Amino acid sequence: MSESRLVKVVVDAMGGDHAPEAVLVGVDAALAADTNLQIILTGPADVVEAFAKSRDRCRAVTTTEVIGMDEHPAHAVRGKKDSSIVVGCRLVRDGEADAFFSAGSTGACMAAATLVMGRIKGVSRPAIATVIPTAGQPVVLLDVGANADCKPENLVQFGHMGAAYAQIVLGVSAPRVALLNIGEEPTKGSQLAQDAHALMAAQLPGFIGNVEGRDLSAGVADVIVTDGFTGNVALKLLEGLSKTLLGQVKDAMTSSAINKLAAAVLKSSLVNLKERLNPDAYGGAPLLGVAGICIIGHGSSGAVAVSSAMRVAAQAARGGLTDHIASALTPV
Amino acid sequence: MSESRLVKVVVDAMGGDHAPEAVLVGVDAALAADTNLQIILTGPADVVEAFAKSRDRCRAVTTTEVIGMDEHPAHAVRGKKDSSIVVGCRLVRDGEADAFFSAGSTGACMAAATLVMGRIKGVSRPAIATVIPTAGQPVVLLDVGANADCKPENLVQFGHMGAAYAQIVLGVSAPRVALLNIGEEPTKGSQLAQDAHALMAAQLPGFIGNVEGRDLSAGVADVIVTDGFTGNVALKLLEGLSKTLLGQVKDAMTSSAINKLAAAVLKSSLVNLKERLNPDAYGGAPLLGVAGICIIGHGSSGAVAVSSAMRVAAQAARGGLTDHIASALTPV
Repeated sequence: MSESRLVKVVVDAMGGDHAPEAVLVGVDAALAADTNLQIILTGPADVVEAFAKSRDRCRAVTTTEVIGMDEHPAHAVRGKKDSSIVVGCRLVRDGEADAFFSAGSTGACMAAATLVMGRIKGVSRPAIATVIPTAGQPVVLLDVGANADCKPENLVQFGHMGAAYAQIVLGVSAPRVALLNIGEEPTKGSQLAQDAHALMAAQLPGFIGNVEGRDLSAGVADVIVTDGFTGNVALKLLEGLSKTLLGQVKDAMTSSAINKLAAAVLKSSLVNLKERLNPDAYGGAPLLGVAGICIIGHGSSGAVAVSSAMRVAAQAARGGLTDHIASALTPV
Repeated sequence: MSESRLVKVVVDAMGGDHAPEAVLVGVDAALAADTNLQIILTGPADVVEAFAKSRDRCRAVTTTEVIGMDEHPAHAVRGKKDSSIVVGCRLVRDGEADAFFSAGSTGACMAAATLVMGRIKGVSRPAIATVIPTAGQPVVLLDVGANADCKPENLVQFGHMGAAYAQIVLGVSAPRVALLNIGEEPTKGSQLAQDAHALMAAQLPGFIGNVEGRDLSAGVADVIVTDGFTGNVALKLLEGLSKTLLGQVKDAMTSSAINKLAAAVLKSSLVNLKERLNPDAYGGAPLLGVAGICIIGHGSSGAVAVSSAMRVAAQAARGGLTDHIASALTPV
């Protein structure tokens, strides 16, 4: 089966707040979990060479530059052609790797992937997607920040791209695609939302209409489409609120000695819940619409998030995500 | 002190999914809690007359029409001039009441208040605000749905109006006002957000810059301003996620007999938490910018939400909210 196809993922060893340590531990876990995975590590010689040499299925490509989290993305990508991010994207473009992963600057990864790999034919704006855990089936939300201002036709493309991702990475055969809006009726919402609704209804297979903010965590759709401004606010709100609420539950549980005893009994159930809600399990945010697989990790990614991202990258590559998006966007 | 000033609040007896029962129980609670509160109930004779007659400080104004939740707001308001909503707004306009409350159709309340009471001089777009509970000081978020498409100057006005509300209803002497955006820097975000940031920085006292989605539940600002599309998505997401998460915590706690025992010990602490996070305590969403106090309750409002809304309406009236907004918007 597809699981057994050999896949090469190039990994930016210098990406993220906990790099390179967390990245390298994550790479080891990924290599152990998937015996048909090969890793190419980009980064400074002293970080990547000895590590790669002592592992099977791991190769180092040394680079001399690193793009910092605070650098201007496009300037940094144009100026630092020998950075771990730019070289990583180049390896995908040249067919030496099947997918690229970095937990570094989101802006720099987007700029490098778009400039170096290019866009899939027909895509006007690549978008960042994220997978949101719900009580049931997880949901693909996009765009979560690549495009603060969107046109209705961008949102239709986001729908196609998100559906392709849900099919290949989440295994949903016929994804239900919804538009994030502020009412259920087609005539509700901003001008953008109304126009996008009309276009999506006409052009997008699997379109089920509008959903509202409360539906994001309810599992009523497999893919939820919105502009990058609303999507980014929603994503950060979800992350922030989950953390705040679970923190408050924890505070309530440790507010007295007897509460602490009771909480100890519940610990494993609540740890399970926390695990299930942990976005790390879904491994990074794909940049959809570029001509190659590019997965961007949260800056705070730990080893688990890195290894999940490798799994997702391999799955996307084995499933032929890029070709699948290209054919979804080709008018029939 | 101001607590003792006599205030008249007109209440739509027919508003909300649980009307009139929940409304009437809430009115009784409000009358008991504030001995200087008078209530005027609008609604059908058989609902309001006997009730009002048997209470002190309660008067009935009978109406013959009711606006349903699904009616087209502006049509309904224009067509049903003897409805409980339209008559309620008229009583405020005519100075017979200090504030209006309904848990009925949000759209109809907005349309009636705007058409009947009119706008405060200088206000181009009234906005709906809501108070979001956080671990610390609650936050006023606006607009949460009155204006799906906004201009930068609308957002500046929302800032003034939200600050006035925070001062009078939440007792914050110098509210910190922030713009909801997708990055901290002034140059981040959509064109609307960038332009609004520049205007707010130049014109709005207490402006502290951008906040992100994760900050909505973090208490870093007293007032958070956004367009009505983003605000509505954010509000419904907050409501939905709080419910989902607390539901999942409950599920985890009742998943085994021993968990149930432990959960029983924790019950009071968790009920406290749930109460603290319950938006009902902040009583309805004010429509800010109309020339009179108008508080709109959630359709699902129970008696507690209704009585909180009476308290907030009385507080807004005693604090002179409408005049306060008018003077904040007058160029000096």
